[in-house]
Amino acid sequence: MTQSNEDVADSRHSDLASGAAWMRGEIMPITQASIPVNDWGLIHSDITYDVVPVWEGAFFRLKHYLSRFFRSMNTLHLDPGVTESDVESVLHELVSATGLRRAYVAMVTSRGVNMVPGSRDPRDCRNHFFAWCVPYIHVIRPDLARSGASIHVARTVTRIPEASVDPRVKNYHWGDFTKGLFEAKDAGAETVMLLDSDGNVTEGPGFNVFAVKDNRLITPDAGVLEGISRQTVLEIGRELGLTTDIRSLPLEELFQSDEVLITTSGGGVAPITKVDDRVFSNGAPGEVTMSIQKRYFEWATMPEHRIEIDYDL
Amino acid sequence: MTQSNEDVADSRHSDLASGAAWMRGEIMPITQASIPVNDWGLIHSDITYDVVPVWEGAFFRLKHYLSRFFRSMNTLHLDPGVTESDVESVLHELVSATGLRRAYVAMVTSRGVNMVPGSRDPRDCRNHFFAWCVPYIHVIRPDLARSGASIHVARTVTRIPEASVDPRVKNYHWGDFTKGLFEAKDAGAETVMLLDSDGNVTEGPGFNVFAVKDNRLITPDAGVLEGISRQTVLEIGRELGLTTDIRSLPLEELFQSDEVLITTSGGGVAPITKVDDRVFSNGAPGEVTMSIQKRYFEWATMPEHRIEIDYDL
Repeated sequence: MTQSNEDVADSRHSDLASGAAWMRGEIMPITQASIPVNDWGLIHSDITYDVVPVWEGAFFRLKHYLSRFFRSMNTLHLDPGVTESDVESVLHELVSATGLRRAYVAMVTSRGVNMVPGSRDPRDCRNHFFAWCVPYIHVIRPDLARSGASIHVARTVTRIPEASVDPRVKNYHWGDFTKGLFEAKDAGAETVMLLDSDGNVTEGPGFNVFAVKDNRLITPDAGVLEGISRQTVLEIGRELGLTTDIRSLPLEELFQSDEVLITTSGGGVAPITKVDDRVFSNGAPGEVTMSIQKRYFEWATMPEHRIEIDYDL
Repeated sequence: MTQSNEDVADSRHSDLASGAAWMRGEIMPITQASIPVNDWGLIHSDITYDVVPVWEGAFFRLKHYLSRFFRSMNTLHLDPGVTESDVESVLHELVSATGLRRAYVAMVTSRGVNMVPGSRDPRDCRNHFFAWCVPYIHVIRPDLARSGASIHVARTVTRIPEASVDPRVKNYHWGDFTKGLFEAKDAGAETVMLLDSDGNVTEGPGFNVFAVKDNRLITPDAGVLEGISRQTVLEIGRELGLTTDIRSLPLEELFQSDEVLITTSGGGVAPITKVDDRVFSNGAPGEVTMSIQKRYFEWATMPEHRIEIDYDL
């Protein structure tokens, strides 16, 4: 995706507009932001993060993302010594500095470097918080988010189970997704979804999955991130008079649904017109999906869901 | 662990002796070696590594580690454009520069930064290789490697299954281990071992597990890294006239064994004298374990297993 004019407020920010980071109180181009090669965030993937979208100059549902980020840190016993209010200030300062009016904004806390040479004890590490942002990322390309995308169902890999890594704590354990992505690209599909060991639908790299059947919205209850965009679509679904079912979703049932859609903070709602060889609604985006997508972008402009960024900070 | 005099060849190397890295042809103190915050090695744990021990001025079984590292890269479709011979040269140059005669030497290949802004395709990333080393790390503290260590069996987490992430490809997906480590520390144990979903023993953070029963050495065949130290102990076991069984090892069987030991490139062979509340061989290291440990350190001095480092490079 190239940087379009409407993504940046003005040219003052050009050196940071392709990406910037906040580390230890300093703002820098993202190309200068790095973490040590022996940080446990890298060498043990002992790290959590969250990503909030900036849309037309405002954070969307920021409090939801901040709450989840702090819950994740708490679950992992990570304490970098920052409050929600501190993080919120950093994110404002960071996005303001870039001038980006549409952005993908990551907040990250890592276990850090072990301060006791040779120690294998996570409690000896110095936890640290940082943030970075880049121009808005579409998990599904914008043209496909209008016309419909294809998903491959991974056959060589199943989703890491909840009993091993908690998917509600947003994490970088993406080995299963990456293996699935290679399989999907070989199959000519845009992206991939993973099943659990019982053949139920879980999620894909960066998105939740929904089936639509007879005015019901069905999305998996287990083995998945409780996405903020997933939550938004459940709320929108109820507003539109749909029934919402949060429960296990066998792949066979997904194949028999009327429509399939995915939700992601990187693009909102995208229609899926093909899963493996099964084509949905004659290959065009489904009606229910498109009414949800339309409503999603309306929500993104409603003051109650937005926290405006002051670009003159 | 503090740096002892015998770990360093001489004082010429003092600025690098606490840790150094090789990145893009340069050698630097490890505190200056870092990777970008948006490298897929970090943000998707899309990375592989290996760790070869340096003992008394020589690499131990280096070719085994190099072969595994290149198999891992191949499985993950990682190609940083280096040969085994290139990596071997880098490791020699790196350790020589530090002067360390006992060291923990990591070779790493990361997927890298995605070169296409907004792309979610791993094939758009620029893969890169780097290496770092620090003074020798004992996965089990040296005093406990003589007197015996305690292991807690994790109850709140099971090992990430092979169907999700291949444990034979050395990886940084340690969320399950880290959760288990917190549980172990709460239980007052030195470290942790994880079971699979059927209650079979798998491995711990950085080591393989063996049971000894009636002159048989039993170690799990699935859900584990095929450790080089594990392989060495299997070879030593046969040399000592023991039978070796590589098969599933239920926890109940482990509890009924005569001795338990672990193997790791960070320390070789360590006796486990306690697993949960079960005490083995009256709390003292077992005889079979100690004869294997003794033989392991003999192997580490045998020319056929060593590649000497030239510290005058």
